[in-house]
Amino acid sequence: MSEFAKLWAEIAPIGRAGSGGYLRFALTEPELTLRDWFRAQAALRDMTVTDDGNGNLFAWRGEPWAPGTVLTGSHFDSVPHGGGYDGPLGIVSAFLAVDRVPRDRRIGIAAFVEEEGGRFGVPCLGSRLLTGVIDPDRAAALTDRDGISFGAALGARPAGARKEIGQIAAVVELHIEQGRALETPVGVASAIWPHGRWRMDFTGIGDHAGTTRMTDRHDPMLTFAHTVLTADQEARLAGAHATMGRVQVEPNATNAIPSLVRGWLDARAADTATLDRLVGSVVEKATERAARDGTTLAMTAESVSGEVAFDTALAERLSALLKDAPILPTGAGHDAGVLSAHVPTAMLFVRNPTGVSHSPAEHASDDDCEAGIEALATVLEELT
Amino acid sequence: MSEFAKLWAEIAPIGRAGSGGYLRFALTEPELTLRDWFRAQAALRDMTVTDDGNGNLFAWRGEPWAPGTVLTGSHFDSVPHGGGYDGPLGIVSAFLAVDRVPRDRRIGIAAFVEEEGGRFGVPCLGSRLLTGVIDPDRAAALTDRDGISFGAALGARPAGARKEIGQIAAVVELHIEQGRALETPVGVASAIWPHGRWRMDFTGIGDHAGTTRMTDRHDPMLTFAHTVLTADQEARLAGAHATMGRVQVEPNATNAIPSLVRGWLDARAADTATLDRLVGSVVEKATERAARDGTTLAMTAESVSGEVAFDTALAERLSALLKDAPILPTGAGHDAGVLSAHVPTAMLFVRNPTGVSHSPAEHASDDDCEAGIEALATVLEELT
Repeated sequence: MSEFAKLWAEIAPIGRAGSGGYLRFALTEPELTLRDWFRAQAALRDMTVTDDGNGNLFAWRGEPWAPGTVLTGSHFDSVPHGGGYDGPLGIVSAFLAVDRVPRDRRIGIAAFVEEEGGRFGVPCLGSRLLTGVIDPDRAAALTDRDGISFGAALGARPAGARKEIGQIAAVVELHIEQGRALETPVGVASAIWPHGRWRMDFTGIGDHAGTTRMTDRHDPMLTFAHTVLTADQEARLAGAHATMGRVQVEPNATNAIPSLVRGWLDARAADTATLDRLVGSVVEKATERAARDGTTLAMTAESVSGEVAFDTALAERLSALLKDAPILPTGAGHDAGVLSAHVPTAMLFVRNPTGVSHSPAEHASDDDCEAGIEALATVLEELT
Repeated sequence: MSEFAKLWAEIAPIGRAGSGGYLRFALTEPELTLRDWFRAQAALRDMTVTDDGNGNLFAWRGEPWAPGTVLTGSHFDSVPHGGGYDGPLGIVSAFLAVDRVPRDRRIGIAAFVEEEGGRFGVPCLGSRLLTGVIDPDRAAALTDRDGISFGAALGARPAGARKEIGQIAAVVELHIEQGRALETPVGVASAIWPHGRWRMDFTGIGDHAGTTRMTDRHDPMLTFAHTVLTADQEARLAGAHATMGRVQVEPNATNAIPSLVRGWLDARAADTATLDRLVGSVVEKATERAARDGTTLAMTAESVSGEVAFDTALAERLSALLKDAPILPTGAGHDAGVLSAHVPTAMLFVRNPTGVSHSPAEHASDDDCEAGIEALATVLEELT
């Protein structure tokens, strides 16, 4: 059994659901168990563990935040029934890469909190807090589906921006690729598409499904359905991505016309102008349809991220170090994208043969994961 | 304060949600509280209370199931956030009507269990069990959203058909009207439209919303959305009713293409042929769309009820007794519809000025409710 396979097996059962996917929401029991595992791994390597007061955990070789430290790592949390690689691969690989780098190098390994936004709705919440791009009070007030706030789950008001981030020499996050574009074991990121999440509240009039004449209805499910199809069509026309994969209905009863249908639009495009046009067009058509259905639409931007272009010189240097590993963009958001506005930042991708992610079927081969660790070790040694 | 308003106020707070609507699901705490109230009302009137082993409760003036008894009453359970009148009005009115009828008359008041199907999915479950049109083992195995079975909630295997129902002289259920068709305080039912509930499981492939190319997707939300719009269009063309007001999504995450979208179709029409054509057409178009989306559709009929024509002679007699009260059909299912196959059955409707039902906004005026009680007392006295 390879070193990777051995360490991977330690965390594989934690938070695994009957679906084969994971329920590892931020600051819930499985994620807290993974944090304990993180502390134990750090202890085995004589690394100091610190917490930044925002829910982000760090293991340090050398003094915490020492100038010139290279930061790696990723996140433990999953989307509901997501795969096991998205996040944890970057942390497991970091510990194994550190083992292969001379002991005098200054390296930090991060476990960022709430990267997926799967519990509190704002992705990359931990890195946004650390870099000061989200207000700590706003973050503290975010609630999960049970009404528990991020502040309550954390047990404190988040500390917010830490100026020490400016002392970090570079950030390198290793992550499983989430499309099928990478055809070698390891690649280097060029950019993250601009992307965002918008909550769309379609409000109508709740009524009896059996007795209300079709012409008397104000059914927000119709407006929602039309918007789902519009978002799909407009994204295809724009060469962009749009998804409405989450919905909440009130009262959600078979024999009742809903009073409210709340849908979330996830949209991404290669550039900000295309993304803006796409979202604008979806809203325009949804609003037109709402007028026909006698419903109303209220739109809330929950998180919008501009395009992230990673440090080009750094990406090229990494590619050269890794025998001309391919350089490619991604449609997925990452903590590295948030950090890139503050620190020279790069990402390494490990091949995903099917491209499937955010699903129990997400997979990377042990050999490719081993190649990822080797690449990360090479990069950490070179940059420190 | 009228007698009606006084008695109504006793139950108004039970199970009321912040929405102003009710969460009175069968055999949950609020509905059990209403059953205690039912027993107390029966005791005040020296009525004997029995249980038929199916979860249906009866209060009897005279011997239980005595030949020639007229049965009235309705149900306590609500749809999620439904109004307070749908069901309970028939029970409250029954107690007050009994007070106005000579004491020697044989009258039964029923509180049927799970009329809405809001907890276990099959509407009129109690009257279906009582009349033997659903198998007790099938009923026992029905589960609610938390996986609790009807058998477990009842605390026993349902007793099933009771032959004593054949000894009942007539059934008269009083109910709030659920459309705007009734323009006088009280009306009499002619028929219930044939109707049914079908569960539609749209299965696709779960994947990452950010990184999966539009052309690589198998997104079941698209098939669902297309089916919602199709059901609406086809119902309008057929002069029928179709609603998709309930949906469940897996994993239901903003940044994940769903693996499964489960929607429920509620369809009703004036005759069975129209209903069959409507549902057939929706399935055909949903299946075509599924082929385009690379998804699959599995359809399950959860409950289908043929047309119910109430006893015409009885309806005409009641209308005449009530000063030519109008006779009208309804799109809503009722326990009286199930019972009508076994006992001469009639329904009285109380005017609903807005027609809104299955919503917190459902309302009838106290004066109309008082007129309903008076009409029910007249009918009970005449029929016994």
